[in-house]
Amino acid sequence: MNTNTKIKPLEFVINTVQDGNENELEFFVKTMSNADKARLIESLPKQFRSQVWSRIQVKDKGETLLAMHSEVRRWIVDIADKEELVSSLSYMQMDELADLDEDLPISVLSAMVEAMDNQRRILYDTVKVYPNDTAGGLMDLDAIGIRADVSIRAVLGHIRNLFKQEKKLPEHLDSLIVVDRLNRVEGSIALSQLLCFPAKTSISEVMEYRTPSITARMSAKNVVRIFEDNDLLSAPVVDDNRVLIGRITVDDVVDFNHKQVEKEALNQAGLDENADIFTPILSGSLKRAIWLGINLITAFLAAWIIGLYDASIEKLVALAILMPVVASMGGVTGSQTLTIVTRGVALEKISVSNILAVSIHELKIATLNGILWAGVVFVIAYFWFNDVWLGLIFSASLLIAILSGTIFGAMIPLFLIRFGSDPAIAGGVILTTITDMVGFFVFLSLATFFLI
Amino acid sequence: MNTNTKIKPLEFVINTVQDGNENELEFFVKTMSNADKARLIESLPKQFRSQVWSRIQVKDKGETLLAMHSEVRRWIVDIADKEELVSSLSYMQMDELADLDEDLPISVLSAMVEAMDNQRRILYDTVKVYPNDTAGGLMDLDAIGIRADVSIRAVLGHIRNLFKQEKKLPEHLDSLIVVDRLNRVEGSIALSQLLCFPAKTSISEVMEYRTPSITARMSAKNVVRIFEDNDLLSAPVVDDNRVLIGRITVDDVVDFNHKQVEKEALNQAGLDENADIFTPILSGSLKRAIWLGINLITAFLAAWIIGLYDASIEKLVALAILMPVVASMGGVTGSQTLTIVTRGVALEKISVSNILAVSIHELKIATLNGILWAGVVFVIAYFWFNDVWLGLIFSASLLIAILSGTIFGAMIPLFLIRFGSDPAIAGGVILTTITDMVGFFVFLSLATFFLI
Repeated sequence: MNTNTKIKPLEFVINTVQDGNENELEFFVKTMSNADKARLIESLPKQFRSQVWSRIQVKDKGETLLAMHSEVRRWIVDIADKEELVSSLSYMQMDELADLDEDLPISVLSAMVEAMDNQRRILYDTVKVYPNDTAGGLMDLDAIGIRADVSIRAVLGHIRNLFKQEKKLPEHLDSLIVVDRLNRVEGSIALSQLLCFPAKTSISEVMEYRTPSITARMSAKNVVRIFEDNDLLSAPVVDDNRVLIGRITVDDVVDFNHKQVEKEALNQAGLDENADIFTPILSGSLKRAIWLGINLITAFLAAWIIGLYDASIEKLVALAILMPVVASMGGVTGSQTLTIVTRGVALEKISVSNILAVSIHELKIATLNGILWAGVVFVIAYFWFNDVWLGLIFSASLLIAILSGTIFGAMIPLFLIRFGSDPAIAGGVILTTITDMVGFFVFLSLATFFLI
Repeated sequence: MNTNTKIKPLEFVINTVQDGNENELEFFVKTMSNADKARLIESLPKQFRSQVWSRIQVKDKGETLLAMHSEVRRWIVDIADKEELVSSLSYMQMDELADLDEDLPISVLSAMVEAMDNQRRILYDTVKVYPNDTAGGLMDLDAIGIRADVSIRAVLGHIRNLFKQEKKLPEHLDSLIVVDRLNRVEGSIALSQLLCFPAKTSISEVMEYRTPSITARMSAKNVVRIFEDNDLLSAPVVDDNRVLIGRITVDDVVDFNHKQVEKEALNQAGLDENADIFTPILSGSLKRAIWLGINLITAFLAAWIIGLYDASIEKLVALAILMPVVASMGGVTGSQTLTIVTRGVALEKISVSNILAVSIHELKIATLNGILWAGVVFVIAYFWFNDVWLGLIFSASLLIAILSGTIFGAMIPLFLIRFGSDPAIAGGVILTTITDMVGFFVFLSLATFFLI
């Protein structure tokens, strides 16, 4: 597979479509991975997308759809041939199908379910019970359960039989799950172990008993953590009675995590993680308008604080010049502490039991920095405006803004978590709103009191 | 393994240490995964850390160190018993050891190399050639190469022999690499395939020929992409002549990616990804001082712009009140476009070939939003200050700030990439510096021209 040489698919596709060279395009699309096909379609302006889509083989269309963002996916589903779509879905695994189906129209869904054999329909119903962001949503239903008291020979025979019936084994099969009479998980055994020991060995002698088992209702974020911490390739999923119902493989965990990171980065800027980069202008504007509206409110809150001191500013215009510096330094220091606490909480390094120690530590660092930069700005303000008192008030305000920014940076994430909100998303806006208001207030009120 | 019930290790450890209940602590530490041990040590104030460290078993100490951030690791290495440390390192895989060794003192390093047998020493030297952030740095040297023209029976015999000699197989062995006479990669075969076909089958009949192969010099970020796109569990690593030299397993890819995401989140706030949450105050302050200094410069640049219009502000203090609103809305709109372009470039959905189309699309969205919010702020400013002209200038400036923010948001990432800088890190600061300056300048200069 070609992973080194770099072609530029975008220019190539646009040129090929414009030149009407269809065979070349077809061949080119065939050589791409499904993830690359999805990426290509997403990066193309809309008029070129259907050209690429129609050249993807039916068996690959489902996986390509899966790799797209929701909004692009819906657009493609809209223009796709519905019959072909239904048959492309029959190539997909159940857990993948369950991730996709909210973006499918009812007609396609019912045709899809109708085309399923009985067994596949039962599996589909089982998977649909669990939301996408839980272990149940990530799992596939192809776990192979074996008993501890059988021999390796018997297990190998079982696997060969399964292969003969199904013509294939589950994807990414690295281990088998050992279960008891009631199908409850007891442990696991790696395929590689089966190869190493004599065929008469009993599974109980060579199996791993410390297999992490995951309950279907566990959040997908926790699943990611368990896979990362234990370096797992796959793990059994159990129901509330510890009964084996499925299996999560690391590739699904990696995909979920990738989407999660992406979602966080976009949500932080008030963007929808499912949006098409060529989203329709009007709906795209409306989605972003909310975020801009929130920011407008916070900006006007800061403006209102400034407005309280209009008489002081009129008398001493230097206040208007220097006040953004105070607010901004408080915001920056606060966002450093906010980031440390937010990440620390997400990685479970910071909790209520050490937040006080962490906050005090952050405050000590902020104090040193506050003193340093208060000194620097005093000199600058003094030489700029030739006014010792203004310089003193300015540098004292900066120090206060830095210290209070740190305190808010440590408190806000814990506060948001307590109220069930994700600090990685809302934390930044709330922090800068507060640090702006505090910065303007401290500087303008101190100046009004001492200088005016 | 206990993954559901939640204990609070932090409180527990602090209490146990203070109560002097050492046995309980020892038992508790033993039940944790190595990642959890590392996390626990990182979250403890320094006086408690050595208590936990001394209770970790020698065979787990290496892996626990590996899971820590560099700064905490160095602190632990400093207080650790050096002889014990050397023996704990002998339990580690080569690729792990290579990630760790920059944080080890020379004395430990040389004792470690001395304790290696010849074979291990050669492996170590091979791994050390490649930097940590390349495929060579992620790889382990335990790839099992087999030939295509042998039978499954012969391969199984080979694996059993290997197991007899080494007493274990490589970790996460899901497939074998098929190589030619010169040890060049031809493909691979999954262990599960070996189990399904008759023992006399030739490997060439059942092997996978489309195995992505990774060159040792490839960047680790690209490796992550290839694993994600192709849902791999492992992949062979080759040198420049396509000769098999190692193997990357998905768990190392997951770890690398986790650290990378963490690094990006921290660097965005000007923080060091290796820092201890209880880093020494003085060095911690100095590290952050640089970031604060950069922000101070940018804040003074904005102040300097304001200073140019001090006469206007003196005459019309409403300008000082409203100017932060203009700057902030430009910054927010810009950061939305910046995020879309930065993420799009990172995921290869946006490149020079479609950046124009993307920018025009972003500008259309920004125009709609700009008109909407310009209208809203006109009404607010009019009723606040009872001045139609001020309202008009204010809303026109807001529209201009929003549009120019969008343009800068699209340009800055491409500009940074061209100069080899990571837009995810520096992009935000540069953008808000510019949008602040532009926002203040546009509003104050228009107001000076039309109102004063």
